[in-house]
Amino acid sequence: MLLRSKRCWALVAFSLMGFTAQAQSPGQDSVMIRRIFSEALANGKSYGNLHYLCTAIGPRLSGSEGAAKAVTWTQQLMAGMGLDRVYLQEVQVPHWVRGKKEKAKIRSRASSQQVPICALGGSIGTGKKALRAHVVEVQTFEELRGLDRAKVAGRIVFFNRPMNPRFIQAGQAYGEAVNQRSTGAIEAARMGAAGAIVRSMNLAQDDYPHTGSMHYQEGVTKIPAAAISTNGADLLSRLLQEDPGLQFAFTQNPQTLPDALSHNVVGEIRGSEFPGEVILVGGHLDSWDLAQGAHDNGAGCMQAIEVLRLMKALNYQPKRTIRTVLFMNEENGLRGGLKYAELARKNKENHIAAIESDAGGFTPRGFSIVAPAHKISQIARWKQVLAPYGLHDIGAGGGEADIGPLKSDQIALIGFRPDSQRYFVHHHAASDTFDQVNRRELELGGASMTALVYLLDQYGLK
Amino acid sequence: MLLRSKRCWALVAFSLMGFTAQAQSPGQDSVMIRRIFSEALANGKSYGNLHYLCTAIGPRLSGSEGAAKAVTWTQQLMAGMGLDRVYLQEVQVPHWVRGKKEKAKIRSRASSQQVPICALGGSIGTGKKALRAHVVEVQTFEELRGLDRAKVAGRIVFFNRPMNPRFIQAGQAYGEAVNQRSTGAIEAARMGAAGAIVRSMNLAQDDYPHTGSMHYQEGVTKIPAAAISTNGADLLSRLLQEDPGLQFAFTQNPQTLPDALSHNVVGEIRGSEFPGEVILVGGHLDSWDLAQGAHDNGAGCMQAIEVLRLMKALNYQPKRTIRTVLFMNEENGLRGGLKYAELARKNKENHIAAIESDAGGFTPRGFSIVAPAHKISQIARWKQVLAPYGLHDIGAGGGEADIGPLKSDQIALIGFRPDSQRYFVHHHAASDTFDQVNRRELELGGASMTALVYLLDQYGLK
Repeated sequence: MLLRSKRCWALVAFSLMGFTAQAQSPGQDSVMIRRIFSEALANGKSYGNLHYLCTAIGPRLSGSEGAAKAVTWTQQLMAGMGLDRVYLQEVQVPHWVRGKKEKAKIRSRASSQQVPICALGGSIGTGKKALRAHVVEVQTFEELRGLDRAKVAGRIVFFNRPMNPRFIQAGQAYGEAVNQRSTGAIEAARMGAAGAIVRSMNLAQDDYPHTGSMHYQEGVTKIPAAAISTNGADLLSRLLQEDPGLQFAFTQNPQTLPDALSHNVVGEIRGSEFPGEVILVGGHLDSWDLAQGAHDNGAGCMQAIEVLRLMKALNYQPKRTIRTVLFMNEENGLRGGLKYAELARKNKENHIAAIESDAGGFTPRGFSIVAPAHKISQIARWKQVLAPYGLHDIGAGGGEADIGPLKSDQIALIGFRPDSQRYFVHHHAASDTFDQVNRRELELGGASMTALVYLLDQYGLK
Repeated sequence: MLLRSKRCWALVAFSLMGFTAQAQSPGQDSVMIRRIFSEALANGKSYGNLHYLCTAIGPRLSGSEGAAKAVTWTQQLMAGMGLDRVYLQEVQVPHWVRGKKEKAKIRSRASSQQVPICALGGSIGTGKKALRAHVVEVQTFEELRGLDRAKVAGRIVFFNRPMNPRFIQAGQAYGEAVNQRSTGAIEAARMGAAGAIVRSMNLAQDDYPHTGSMHYQEGVTKIPAAAISTNGADLLSRLLQEDPGLQFAFTQNPQTLPDALSHNVVGEIRGSEFPGEVILVGGHLDSWDLAQGAHDNGAGCMQAIEVLRLMKALNYQPKRTIRTVLFMNEENGLRGGLKYAELARKNKENHIAAIESDAGGFTPRGFSIVAPAHKISQIARWKQVLAPYGLHDIGAGGGEADIGPLKSDQIALIGFRPDSQRYFVHHHAASDTFDQVNRRELELGGASMTALVYLLDQYGLK
C-alpha cells in the first residue's frame, strides 16, 4: 500500500464509522464510549501489565509459585489504583505438577524418531520406565467402542480426530474435538488400553503439544494420557499406515499433590447510587504451566483490571458497584469460580451482570450472553453505539466458565468475544507468550468491556 | 479456557451465526457461500502459495530480480489451474535500488549511538561520506514553515509526529501521518535543510524502520530522506531535549536506475453468459525491498489467485468473466494499475466491479466501495448473507490504489477490508514476513472475496 492511500484510508475509516453507526444518536453514551476507546488506545496499561505478568512472573498453574506471585502482584497493582476495596478470597485448589519433561518415541520398522508430547493436566505418570506398546488409532469414541477389546487391551489408543477447520468460529471446532482430550483416557481404559495419546487441540500444523485438563472416572483404571503435536500426530498416523505393528514409547511423571491454598483477587469501585448492584468483570489468573499464559488468560485479567483503571482515568463515578475478579483455577478445577459464587450467595450479593474475557487478547468482535431473552434484547440494542468499534456480534451465546456458577434469572452472564482465528494456535501450548499479543488488539478488548460496563451501569438491566 | 467450554463454544458459535444472519433466507446463495468458505478453510492454497512467494522468491521491488521471478512463477501457477486465459501485460517500471545498508548515528554531548534507519523509496543518497548536521524537530509542516529559515538551513529536519493511536481504523492514523514521509523532503528542502529524517509510520514501538515512497518536486532541491524506527525517533527526541546542539549523521546510497520492463500478470475464467462483463480481483505483486512482502501484498495476490481456484474446485462456472490481476509497481509508481486501465479502455472492456486486497492478510471485516450510490446499496444488501462470516462493514469507502485508474460510473471499485490493527506494525518494514500471517485469517480473506465475486456474478451490478 502506498501513500496515495491517504485519502482512501480516510474515506474508508470515516465511511465505515458512518454507516456502521447510522442509527446512532450522537448522545452522551457515544461521547463517553469514544472517550473510553481513546484513553485505552492512547494510554492503556493492560499491555504493559501483561508484559510484567508474562515475563516477570510467567506460568501460573494452580498451586504453583507463579500463581502465588500473580495473586500478590495483582493485589498490589489494584491496591495502587485508588479503588474502594481490594481483597482476596481464599480457595483450596488442586495442585498438579508436571515433573520432568516428557519424552516420546515412535519405533517403526523403518525408523525410530522422537516426537513432541506433553502430559495432559491431571494425568498420572508412566513411571520412570517408558510405557511402550502397540498403537490403535481412532477418530471417535464410537469407533473405539466398536473395536474388538482384545485388539485394544494393553495398547496405546491414539485419538487423532483433527479439529474441523470448516467452522468460522474456531471455538466451535474446539468444542467438537475436545472430548478426546477430556475423557479419552476413560474411554481407552474401558477397553483395556495401557495409555492414551491425543492429537493436540490446534488448528495449525506445528510442533507444539497442547496440554489441557483431562479426567478419570471412579471405577475405571487410570492410565497415562498425553497430547502429541499436530505434526507429530500426522507423522504417527502415516507411519502406522506403513507399519501397523510399530511401537510408541513415552515417559511422563506428573504428580497430583495435596490441595493447596490459593486466592481469587478482587478489586472494586463502589457504586454511588446502587452500591448493592454489582457488575462483575473478570478473567482467570491461573494458566497452564507450559507457557506464560498470555492469551489464556493473562490478557483477560489485565483487561478486567483495565476496566477499573479506565473509569478512574476518565473520572467516571459509577452508580453501581463495578468489581474486577481474577479467578483462580479455571484450568483444572474451577474452584475459584465456585468459591466466588458460594460467597456471593452467602453474602446475598446482587450481581446484575458478569462479563468474562477468556478467549484471548484478540481484536474485539462482540459479546455472547446467557440470560433471559428480554435482558439479551436490552443488551443487543446497544449494538448501535458499540458497532463503530467492531462490536457487531452481540446476542445469545455462551458465557465463560468462571462466571457460570453465578447463573440465575437475575444475572446476565456475558462472554467477551474477540476474533477467534488465532486462539487455538497458542491455547495451552508453550507458544502462548507475550510476543503473540498485539497491543492495540488487547487494549481494544479492555475498552470494549468498559464500554459495556458503562452501559450496564447507566441503565441497569431490567 | 478449559474443557467445559465445549458446550459454551458450540452455543456461542451457533448463536452468533444465528443472530448475525437472522434476516438471511436459507437460499442457494447461502449454500454456495458456505461451500466457498468450507473449501477455503479445509483445502485453501493461498497460505502454501504465499509461503513459496515469501520464502523462495522474497522481496519484489519493481525492477528487481525478485519481481521478475514473481511474475514468472505466478504466471506458471495460474497456467496450471485450467483457466481460460493467462497472460502478461508489459509495463515499464521505475527501478530504484537501495544499495548498501544505511547507517545513522546520534552524537550528543553525553553519548554517541547508532539508530536504525532506512532510505525512503525514491530518495537520493548522501554520498559515501555521512551527511552530518544539527537537527530541527517538528511535528507538522505548518510548524516547519513557521520557523526562521536560518534555523533550518543546512540542518536535518526531523519529522516526528506519531500516528494517532486513537483511531479505531489504523489506516486512518496512517492517512493522517504519511505526508511526513511522502513530501517531508520537499518541505524541508524549501526551508534550506540538508536532509530529512521521518518517524516510521508504525503504531508499535520497536526498532524497525519502515520505508515507503517519497517524492521530490521540480524546482526544489533534492535532499536525502530516511525513516527512523519509532524507538529511534523517541530516543532522538529525548536526546534533543537534553542537548539541542547534538548532531545526526547518516549514510545511504540508493540509486534510481533507468526504467525497467516488467509485467502485470493476468488470469481469467471466461463468463458463460456475459463474457464481456468483467469482474476483476487483484493485488499487487511488487513489494518493498526490506522484507518478504507477506502482508503487503503477497497476501492479496495469493487471495486473488485463490478466488479462481475456489471457483474451479467447486465446479462453479461463472456467467461473467472473472479476472485475477496481479499489478506491478503499486509501491513506487502505480505503473501497473495505470497500464491496466489504459489497455482496458483501449480494448473497450466493460468492468462491472474491481475488488482489490491490499490491506493485509488479516481476519475479514468487510468491503469499502467507491461507486454510484445505488450500486453501493445493492452490494450492502448482500450483508445478510455475508455477515455470518464476519463481513459486517460493507458500504461506501475507499477502494485501493491499483484499481483506482478504472474509476467510472459503470464500475464499483471495492477494497477488501481485513482487520486493521496489526497492519502498520509490519507495513513496509523488515518484519513483514510469512510467519506474521495466520493461515485461517488469510484463507478467510480469499473466501470473502470469492463470496462477493459470486454474488456480483450471479446478479450483476445495476
